[in-house]
Amino acid sequence: MRTIIWKDGVVITIDQTILPDEEIWIEMRSCDEIAKAIKEMKIRGAPLIGVAAAYGLALTAYHSNAENREDFLKEIDISADMLKRTRPTAVNLFWAVDRILKKAKSAEGDVETLKSIVIKEAESIAEEDAVVNKMIGKHGSKLISDGDTILTHCNAGRLATVDYGTALAVIRAAWEEGKRIKVIVDETRPKLQGARLTAYELMRDGIPVTLITDNMVGYVMFRGLVDKVIVGADRIVCDAIINKIGTYSIAVLAYEHKVPFYVAAPLSTFDLNISAKNVIIEERSPEEVTYIKSVRITPPGVNALNPAFDITPMKYVNYIICEKGILSREDLSKMAKAHHSA
Amino acid sequence: MRTIIWKDGVVITIDQTILPDEEIWIEMRSCDEIAKAIKEMKIRGAPLIGVAAAYGLALTAYHSNAENREDFLKEIDISADMLKRTRPTAVNLFWAVDRILKKAKSAEGDVETLKSIVIKEAESIAEEDAVVNKMIGKHGSKLISDGDTILTHCNAGRLATVDYGTALAVIRAAWEEGKRIKVIVDETRPKLQGARLTAYELMRDGIPVTLITDNMVGYVMFRGLVDKVIVGADRIVCDAIINKIGTYSIAVLAYEHKVPFYVAAPLSTFDLNISAKNVIIEERSPEEVTYIKSVRITPPGVNALNPAFDITPMKYVNYIICEKGILSREDLSKMAKAHHSA
Repeated sequence: MRTIIWKDGVVITIDQTILPDEEIWIEMRSCDEIAKAIKEMKIRGAPLIGVAAAYGLALTAYHSNAENREDFLKEIDISADMLKRTRPTAVNLFWAVDRILKKAKSAEGDVETLKSIVIKEAESIAEEDAVVNKMIGKHGSKLISDGDTILTHCNAGRLATVDYGTALAVIRAAWEEGKRIKVIVDETRPKLQGARLTAYELMRDGIPVTLITDNMVGYVMFRGLVDKVIVGADRIVCDAIINKIGTYSIAVLAYEHKVPFYVAAPLSTFDLNISAKNVIIEERSPEEVTYIKSVRITPPGVNALNPAFDITPMKYVNYIICEKGILSREDLSKMAKAHHSA
Repeated sequence: MRTIIWKDGVVITIDQTILPDEEIWIEMRSCDEIAKAIKEMKIRGAPLIGVAAAYGLALTAYHSNAENREDFLKEIDISADMLKRTRPTAVNLFWAVDRILKKAKSAEGDVETLKSIVIKEAESIAEEDAVVNKMIGKHGSKLISDGDTILTHCNAGRLATVDYGTALAVIRAAWEEGKRIKVIVDETRPKLQGARLTAYELMRDGIPVTLITDNMVGYVMFRGLVDKVIVGADRIVCDAIINKIGTYSIAVLAYEHKVPFYVAAPLSTFDLNISAKNVIIEERSPEEVTYIKSVRITPPGVNALNPAFDITPMKYVNYIICEKGILSREDLSKMAKAHHSA
């Protein structure tokens, strides 16, 4: 099952704000609608945001009435700017948009040709994501032993990607190979992606899953209940992993308990030219903290912080799993140097 | 303002499950009603549970129709057993019940005399709690500097005690001395005592408070936003602090960030004869995790853990603040040895 589908100028995806209560598929016919859905987190997960943004440009192209190349590229540029303003942290968004812009601008031909190039490139980005995730699963599964209990955070699953997931790809691959694993997922406040989405995905696949609150992570490690941690990433920079708020706390706890901490993400999440201090951490509305699913949980008027992501220095990361294989900190550091000198 | 009041055979307290939406005072006329309120967490917080249990025995005494000393003490024993079965972890409950049992059993006199002894002892326990908390505040405030931002967890405030609080006593005392402090409180899932009760108390007192989700603790420390951590305790044993789930994760994070970690609790919370491995950690209903204020947040049928407390080894604790003053780990270890040899 694909999380996002392109069909003749319509993009169809599941509204992730309503899961698991209802599984509602929404249809989007313009880049505006895509941008709005990303902002409102109907579409979320770094790889899926990248693919959705690509499809946003494809929608602009498909429905364009531009009569010449210049006007067409202007429309694409406007859409690209709009998409880039939706959410600042996940790099896949910028990667996908820039990849399409580059392809369109360097291509020859008339408007119809450019339209089909943009749409085809968006479809390639989606297709590659599904393939890459299978590879991440295959590589990552080597790190998983029969009988392991794996803690994961937020949702780095099928719902965060086109298919199969990143962190959950590793879990799925291990499960499909017959390893009897169990998963512990924390609920992941404020938006509860762990409780809502990861629990839902794993239950559907029949993989044993236990839900905890975010503040139980230390306790389950203290009790020796966790063998490994696997999370996804929104951006991998030269010195840190940027991922959903709460990741850093888990990484420190894993380090203290000597539990290996793995990050699973495609190369489209890598941004090795920059360091963590240059990453904008999105601050979202305090209402996401002071309300849970439209129920207020605190006195009116209380101050609240709501950083959507945090920064986990590379010191706390044992391995990064991508489509190329399993990378150590040293491998990453070599890649970063190669990038800088390139 | 007292959180719990005794008046002519009626115990009056605030229903903490409804705060901060409504401030509803409930009247209890029997030990059964007290036990039920403790179980349902209408009454919560280790010191308050102790006082409420004492008042539970006072209600049994007050309304007793026993005609002789033996029957009276049997009634008190039955009530004591019922109270001790409500919640297993906070030691103040056992301490208060045993203190009254001992007093009643060692006293001379007829039923009327015993009645008044039990009621008077319960009132003393309540009175002492308020006095002790003021002393905790006065001692603890020495550890707080002007301009500090203090992170606290759950609610160790007025609402967890008869008055003034334990961890919040320290914060209140520092504030009343004119130190310009700020508080960060995490929401404290599953029951949200931080978001509901601590935010409410501090806002009422005009002390600046910022709410975060539990999984933001690492991030705010990483950003250098926390100068000190102060929490309460449900039981202090010779080698660890037992407190609300999430305390241990915070302690490890504080340790890693070199943020001092303080525990504020009265001596009635100390249980130095035993070690953490002998403490029963209460497991509460999974529905407290899978629902938030009657809204389900996860697919039906998901497994969930719900330990109400966790264990923080003494290694992570810089100081314990009690009515006797500020205790180091070494002081505590000496006290434990004295207990053992006594």
